[in-house]
Amino acid sequence: MQIIDGKLISNQIKEEIAEEVKKYVNSGKRPPHLAVIIVGDDGGSQTYVQNKIKACEAVGFKSTHIELPDDTNEEFLLKKVDEFNKDENLDGFIVQLPLPKHISEQKIIEAINPAKDVDGFHPVNIGKMTIGLDGFVPATPLGITELIKRYKIETSGKNVVILGRSNIVGRPISILLSQKNEFGNATVTVCHSRTPNLKDITRQADIIVAAIGIPEFIKADMVKEGVVIIDVGTTRVKSEETKSGWKLKGDVNYEEVAPLSSYITPVPGGVGPMTIASLMQNTLKAYKMNI
Amino acid sequence: MQIIDGKLISNQIKEEIAEEVKKYVNSGKRPPHLAVIIVGDDGGSQTYVQNKIKACEAVGFKSTHIELPDDTNEEFLLKKVDEFNKDENLDGFIVQLPLPKHISEQKIIEAINPAKDVDGFHPVNIGKMTIGLDGFVPATPLGITELIKRYKIETSGKNVVILGRSNIVGRPISILLSQKNEFGNATVTVCHSRTPNLKDITRQADIIVAAIGIPEFIKADMVKEGVVIIDVGTTRVKSEETKSGWKLKGDVNYEEVAPLSSYITPVPGGVGPMTIASLMQNTLKAYKMNI
Repeated sequence: MQIIDGKLISNQIKEEIAEEVKKYVNSGKRPPHLAVIIVGDDGGSQTYVQNKIKACEAVGFKSTHIELPDDTNEEFLLKKVDEFNKDENLDGFIVQLPLPKHISEQKIIEAINPAKDVDGFHPVNIGKMTIGLDGFVPATPLGITELIKRYKIETSGKNVVILGRSNIVGRPISILLSQKNEFGNATVTVCHSRTPNLKDITRQADIIVAAIGIPEFIKADMVKEGVVIIDVGTTRVKSEETKSGWKLKGDVNYEEVAPLSSYITPVPGGVGPMTIASLMQNTLKAYKMNI
Repeated sequence: MQIIDGKLISNQIKEEIAEEVKKYVNSGKRPPHLAVIIVGDDGGSQTYVQNKIKACEAVGFKSTHIELPDDTNEEFLLKKVDEFNKDENLDGFIVQLPLPKHISEQKIIEAINPAKDVDGFHPVNIGKMTIGLDGFVPATPLGITELIKRYKIETSGKNVVILGRSNIVGRPISILLSQKNEFGNATVTVCHSRTPNLKDITRQADIIVAAIGIPEFIKADMVKEGVVIIDVGTTRVKSEETKSGWKLKGDVNYEEVAPLSSYITPVPGGVGPMTIASLMQNTLKAYKMNI
């Protein structure tokens, strides 16, 4: 059993990006520039945004962080998006989700210039990914493909079972892993809440990607020996072992399943740290297209 | 065993559309208007285009048919597309594929206004379909969902196996059937040329969608009793039984598999006739958004 160390890979990627940025800057170019818009004061979002800003500093990106009040109206936010779309010195930006209920998230997402959509949520980028064209892939699926590539996990001809069909994890990773590419060519099955015979399906899987948000859902009797486990779940559960009073739990019962697996991502420290590295990768990509 | 009669359903849909068009026209509105651009004189394309024009007449649409010579350059075609994009009295248009090799198909597709992209090939429409938003769905997958709806075939919780991962059939139908909707909620597996243990997988399928273009590939020993067969294959094979010297064959060995199935689409007369009905549906939809 080998632990897939997302923290390590994430740091490697950030170091590689920092190297590349240094070369551009040394050759007289401006550094890549990412902006983050946050509306309202959702606690979780604040932490995510802080981590993104910190990562920008670590890799040598310029970052801009705009905080708008909870009662910001849609029109104002659209104007801000339009401003960012037109700003030639800004390579990519994200509007941190969720947004307050009075603003249409989809409308905001579709207003973002697809060439600056480093979250990869714009329909144009989703569409390009779906048909195998180059574009921005959302952070979590992009991070998973990086882990697969860097740990040289064979996917071609393998049975991959995805638990969850969300637009930001389950759906895109199911598409990517079944496409004709270096981390693809797998036979992919998408399971979800309406799948009746789940255990029969997961027991046939060479690789399981769990993204349903039910802590410790996958138990030892649901997997076959040698399975590769990619655990995307991150649910906070109460814990008396930690100072904070809670603990992050994945969708997989790690203690039971890890001994049976050939590779496994822990929670925390597996897929989680990859999302910020992916955002940095997407921003560097936007920068290269922009300059 | 029940034959899924695509010709019948296609005619029903066309009649429904004709009814609706009549109402619009009787209320003083102009009829829907579809344009087809064809470049070069590919024999197959000519026939397809003629059938589309005929269908327009049958449902009461206005149609425009533009034939451009084989040596048309990309710039000229892009200008034509731009003209059509701006024409307020044109609701939808398609550029018949394949295009001559000196023209980038993807560039042309991406130049089409997504609101007029009744083929559903623009990345924006593919992206919207992928994340479950309303847009234009390509003709073949749209036709398959219509057959499933009208024959009231249960998909929720069923094992669906798709053979083929093409961007215009396998991929989109795999997404649609696994989404949360009236013809979805299935557990969907996408198989392709790199799937090693195909028979093991197809034998577990409640529904098989075959779209690989290998005539009579699916034999009796690859299916379980009661399977639903959607056969998208249409390969011309030599035949001494027909005047033309050839015959259309599906991806399924009909003689062997039909007796085992609960529902089956014949070839010809199954999925094939649905594609034109779907194009008419998409054009009517574009019209309603436009007027």
